[in-house]
Amino acid sequence: MSDFDAKNKRSRDDTIQQYLDDIKRILETHQRIDDETLDHEALTQGVLEEEIRNSELRELQSQLDAIHPADIAAMLEQLPLVERLLVWKLIPPAKDGDILLEVSEAVRETLIADMDTQELVAAAEQLDADEIADLAPDLPDDVIADVFSSLSEEERARLRAALSYPDDTVGALMDFEMVTVREDVSLDVVMRYLRRLESLPPNTDKLFVVDRREILIGTLLISDLIVAAPETKVRDAMSTDVVTFNPDRDAESAAHAFERYDLSSAPVIDAYSRIVGRITIIDIIDYIREDAEQESLGKVGLRDEDLFSSVWKSAKNRWLWLAVNLGTAFFASRVIGLFEHSIEKLVALAALMPIVAAIAGNSGNQTIALIVRAIAFEEINKSNAKGLLRKELLIALVNGILWGSVAGVFAWLLYGNIALGFVMLGAMLLNLIVAAGVGMLVPLVLQKMGRDPAIGSSVLLTFSTDSMGFLIFLGLATVFLV
Amino acid sequence: MSDFDAKNKRSRDDTIQQYLDDIKRILETHQRIDDETLDHEALTQGVLEEEIRNSELRELQSQLDAIHPADIAAMLEQLPLVERLLVWKLIPPAKDGDILLEVSEAVRETLIADMDTQELVAAAEQLDADEIADLAPDLPDDVIADVFSSLSEEERARLRAALSYPDDTVGALMDFEMVTVREDVSLDVVMRYLRRLESLPPNTDKLFVVDRREILIGTLLISDLIVAAPETKVRDAMSTDVVTFNPDRDAESAAHAFERYDLSSAPVIDAYSRIVGRITIIDIIDYIREDAEQESLGKVGLRDEDLFSSVWKSAKNRWLWLAVNLGTAFFASRVIGLFEHSIEKLVALAALMPIVAAIAGNSGNQTIALIVRAIAFEEINKSNAKGLLRKELLIALVNGILWGSVAGVFAWLLYGNIALGFVMLGAMLLNLIVAAGVGMLVPLVLQKMGRDPAIGSSVLLTFSTDSMGFLIFLGLATVFLV
Repeated sequence: MSDFDAKNKRSRDDTIQQYLDDIKRILETHQRIDDETLDHEALTQGVLEEEIRNSELRELQSQLDAIHPADIAAMLEQLPLVERLLVWKLIPPAKDGDILLEVSEAVRETLIADMDTQELVAAAEQLDADEIADLAPDLPDDVIADVFSSLSEEERARLRAALSYPDDTVGALMDFEMVTVREDVSLDVVMRYLRRLESLPPNTDKLFVVDRREILIGTLLISDLIVAAPETKVRDAMSTDVVTFNPDRDAESAAHAFERYDLSSAPVIDAYSRIVGRITIIDIIDYIREDAEQESLGKVGLRDEDLFSSVWKSAKNRWLWLAVNLGTAFFASRVIGLFEHSIEKLVALAALMPIVAAIAGNSGNQTIALIVRAIAFEEINKSNAKGLLRKELLIALVNGILWGSVAGVFAWLLYGNIALGFVMLGAMLLNLIVAAGVGMLVPLVLQKMGRDPAIGSSVLLTFSTDSMGFLIFLGLATVFLV
Repeated sequence: MSDFDAKNKRSRDDTIQQYLDDIKRILETHQRIDDETLDHEALTQGVLEEEIRNSELRELQSQLDAIHPADIAAMLEQLPLVERLLVWKLIPPAKDGDILLEVSEAVRETLIADMDTQELVAAAEQLDADEIADLAPDLPDDVIADVFSSLSEEERARLRAALSYPDDTVGALMDFEMVTVREDVSLDVVMRYLRRLESLPPNTDKLFVVDRREILIGTLLISDLIVAAPETKVRDAMSTDVVTFNPDRDAESAAHAFERYDLSSAPVIDAYSRIVGRITIIDIIDYIREDAEQESLGKVGLRDEDLFSSVWKSAKNRWLWLAVNLGTAFFASRVIGLFEHSIEKLVALAALMPIVAAIAGNSGNQTIALIVRAIAFEEINKSNAKGLLRKELLIALVNGILWGSVAGVFAWLLYGNIALGFVMLGAMLLNLIVAAGVGMLVPLVLQKMGRDPAIGSSVLLTFSTDSMGFLIFLGLATVFLV
């Protein structure tokens, strides 16, 4: 009770911060660990193990023993590389597997690079087949081979199955910890069976009712198991209105189903309705977060990046995107180059042309955001897509006239040239229509091609609105003004 | 069994699509419902109710009766306004409350606008206090007053409590369906107690153990209740290492805790450790999705927008953002205006200046994406912020020299002017450093001000990289070239 209250007074995030401070303090006060010995080489050459045995770092080690693996993972992500690897050395090996699962992929790489084959095999062996499959892409081949040979026949088959499904499918997210029962037994028999298991798998809110061919015929909610009369047969207490998933189904649509039907767990079945696994909301929530994160980074052309990776590694992570954008900027620049003659004659064009490009880019990005969301929520279908395109074009018309007029008046007042104002209005209007069309069609086409519409749409849009904006504005100006 | 198989053969999304097709077909074949009668007035004047009584629309009505409220909500979101309101009329009133909870806010407004006070009160009365609180912002005052007076004393207190917490706090997400037990009873007594409840609240994975002052002293997992020996006392089976939340805590950090500790539900307690409610992963997942959605729209200055709202309403939703961006574009345009004299002399500047602005904008957006993510995952703290800024500036240096050289060589070859190439290189380098600084500091400052760093950072960045890009490039050119 006092223990519990103490925990409440300090939130866990504060606790993590406090441990981080502790670690820094210990590292700093500990004299022999200065910049010279605490480099990567010292860590890998076992100098540090020596150190740990003989020093007050043992104190830190025993503290770490009491912390939840997920909290340790959060701490490791907040530590620069050298400190991170020192703490990693101090962590009890029994937690290695769980922590590797919890840290981000970029941080995981740094930890795995610091472990030898034996340590990695030991860490992987603490995990379930589906968890090993999650780590597998980051593990060296010889580690995987060793782990494989140490598994039971059943676990090996499960690992093989889990590895066979592509990322972002239900099969890659599912686990194998399902509890199955038969329909012809009574609930008190089920109760006795569960009691013999000694513990239920995490997030077991329902049992799966199968026949002798392992074909799913319904689910029995744990809460029904508890409240229904013990002599009731499973068949009479189970639900046959079950949301099931095929392992090949994409994870995004499974996530929507979990949200829509407020599921906690659901059976995964093969083409013959045989149960092959289970997917829980814990898997789903991890997927949603990872997906959102990859998307927000992917939009600016980044892969996952360790906050503390080297400058060089980080710089390279950003190159592809910068190269692509430099390419589109060069192209837009050449469009302007076509009209250098007009700009020489009327230099106001140079000052005004970025406005035409920028507003259309912004407006098109609004369209993209709405369409991408509608695609994600499956709100767009064949029968309404045409109506939506018409609507976006009409909005572009309204906004083009309105904001084109504002910009046109600005140009007129500034340069005292009313014709220039009309060219501005016309160019804004046309370019906003381009933006609406591109902003609507690009995500739909990307999706049709099986790509994530959130990633890439914006580059293609800016490419169009910049190039077309310059072309339209300078073209109109050349025809009507110069 | 056959029923179950049939359900499996067709995924639920296909089912929704099929119902949508059915609705369209019925609406089209039904002669009297043409464009003239099926307008909004007809719907509100009860003409349609008449229609429904006498027609084959009844068939559709009975079909809708069998569909999950969440599926109906998804259908309503995919239907244009007139069809949406027609289907809404056909839905059994008993489902109104659940459906209103499920639809997006923008669609909810259209449905509520179509209901009279009596219908709204009836719909709200089907819901729990925490659900009514979710709807409350969209309900007219007289409806809320009516609902309030119809509630029991306890429910009224709960509704008052739920309404008192700001959006995005644990208090706004929690429900009141917690099952509490005492620590000194045995598990079979708990079992008998639960059996008397006849059903457990959804997502009950644990019971809350409280003393007679309602102070939380632990939690009892349902799975432990099942597997432990019946004569065990609650005190010996419960866990006292409990993750709890204060109702004022922000929902984002609660979501992180749910992910980190793989929680399904958690107690919400007040300052005296008294239990006041419960938060479940279902609430969390809804929050995460809504938050992600608002963020992706908020980034381009949009509020939630019904895909089928009028052109005029949609256009207005986009204005603030376009106005802000027009303002920043005008400003950048005036920066260019300062250098019109130089551009007249060397028109190549006009073609090259957008490149300098664009690449820095892209590079800065990469920095923003990483920093916003690090803020969300609480990876940034005082002790590492300075090191990260230094790192971002170094990356900008590396990328500035690299891509500045590429752009410089491009300018040199294109215009045969090597000095122009060096100005290009210098301007790119300096502007990338501006971008790194702004991209790092703006999200941190916004967060310090208590605002969402994901929203607004990008506008401020583009404002800086455009204006500074033009200023630096044209400034250097004026000094060294003209």
